[in-house]
Amino acid sequence: MLGAIEAGGTKFVCAVGDSNGKIVERVQIPTAVPEETIPKVLEFFQSYSLDAVGIGSFGPIDVNPESPTYGYITSTPKEGWMNYPFVQSIKEALSVPIGFNTDVNAAALGEATYGAAKDLDSCLYITVGTGIGAGAIVQGKLLQGWSHPEMGHILVRRHPGDQYEGKCGYHQDCLEGLASGPAIEARWGDKGVNLVDREEVWELEGYYLAQALMQYILILSPKKIILGGGVMKQKQVFTNIRKYLVELLNDYVTLPDLHSYIVSPGLGDDAGITGALMLAREAAEK
Amino acid sequence: MLGAIEAGGTKFVCAVGDSNGKIVERVQIPTAVPEETIPKVLEFFQSYSLDAVGIGSFGPIDVNPESPTYGYITSTPKEGWMNYPFVQSIKEALSVPIGFNTDVNAAALGEATYGAAKDLDSCLYITVGTGIGAGAIVQGKLLQGWSHPEMGHILVRRHPGDQYEGKCGYHQDCLEGLASGPAIEARWGDKGVNLVDREEVWELEGYYLAQALMQYILILSPKKIILGGGVMKQKQVFTNIRKYLVELLNDYVTLPDLHSYIVSPGLGDDAGITGALMLAREAAEK
Repeated sequence: MLGAIEAGGTKFVCAVGDSNGKIVERVQIPTAVPEETIPKVLEFFQSYSLDAVGIGSFGPIDVNPESPTYGYITSTPKEGWMNYPFVQSIKEALSVPIGFNTDVNAAALGEATYGAAKDLDSCLYITVGTGIGAGAIVQGKLLQGWSHPEMGHILVRRHPGDQYEGKCGYHQDCLEGLASGPAIEARWGDKGVNLVDREEVWELEGYYLAQALMQYILILSPKKIILGGGVMKQKQVFTNIRKYLVELLNDYVTLPDLHSYIVSPGLGDDAGITGALMLAREAAEK
Repeated sequence: MLGAIEAGGTKFVCAVGDSNGKIVERVQIPTAVPEETIPKVLEFFQSYSLDAVGIGSFGPIDVNPESPTYGYITSTPKEGWMNYPFVQSIKEALSVPIGFNTDVNAAALGEATYGAAKDLDSCLYITVGTGIGAGAIVQGKLLQGWSHPEMGHILVRRHPGDQYEGKCGYHQDCLEGLASGPAIEARWGDKGVNLVDREEVWELEGYYLAQALMQYILILSPKKIILGGGVMKQKQVFTNIRKYLVELLNDYVTLPDLHSYIVSPGLGDDAGITGALMLAREAAEK
């Protein structure tokens, strides 16, 4: 049996499942400080005999196995989690191999294994919610270089009519600063779920996300782009992204039909936790 | 013996060399229409017994082996070269295996094998000259997905003081439209080589290229960034790129020391032709 943790900024999803991605039990735990959250995580896993645990975590995290802080959450503003030795604390308690990557890399892996990109060796998974992040599969493997990508913080061009100053604590009006769920709420004075009929909200959202997709496409050339997260439940955003992307790219690159190219997660909200199971499978096989 | 072609928009460099990247003879041929240029290329190779030829070509090109137009230069505005079956015409004449990729991918491969990134499994090579393009090595392999990257055409934010409208025929003021050699000449009324002492020219160049590097870093997280091409002979641009990049990233991601991270090609102007030799080596080994 394998254990999986999808560690998000608002909640932890923990699951046990098998190496085929089948989840047999799961639980949700609110993300408080580590001293509160982690004991509940360990309690959930306690009754299972696990071969490995996979963690898909919010970040930034240290994924370099040669680094002295490998397995740490690093520069998060989230109280109690900065410099938290995530892998070490789970490993110490459960004594099993641990797979560790970003939440969005886990989701990309889940989608590439069992979801919308399951027959492809290349895809991009983007979440648009409390934050914006993305993970990529390149030639069959999770993209990693010096560190993991931080694609949510790329620069976009401001819409001339957009007066909102941006919400990112590091870059103010980067993509995440202008297009995350909290940015939508701050700009329009209400949560996105209460703005469903306000066309201009989702026009602007499509305007910014299309710019991001243009950059991702020109730099990574993914074979499929999967957009998940709370904001993407507003399906009109997909329509607006495709519209602006066609304008921006102006036929410079040839792409597949955009309706099959830019899609929702095949695994729905289970992309991340399924991917965390795959990280556990990889760790067990090592 | 291996053959190599670095096919650029203004000249072709052809070379013969060995599988260790050693070049034994080379020639330069101006890029005219294919009916003029290709016979001269073939004439150069004629006296050698070659095992394979590697081509690093200007583009966009079709690098998908399953495509009916694999080996073609596709949508170039360059007279005579649109939809030109480059691989086919060389293969027909020389009857050897052909390796085929973009000029910048070839240069990235050259730098990763024998140049500034020779001990790394990850790097980004960017050329800033007549056009702007980049190739990436990810986990030891040339990055390829649906197609090859087209990183020169990403969006940047215009400098508020920059009135120049941009030179890209597809996107007007994308990175290439604002920061290529021809854009510099059009904006300032003279070629870059004649503007060496005009600080504002290279400030603005650094301003745009730093934005591009920010996007590349956040999306690809390369282990080394190598900048070549005619414009990058102005060494003050490196200083300006580093300065603006530090401001833009604002310590969100941890990077190596920028002086060793953002560098000139280790192979100088031979990155592309050396990489084309490596493409030939790969083709011979297949």
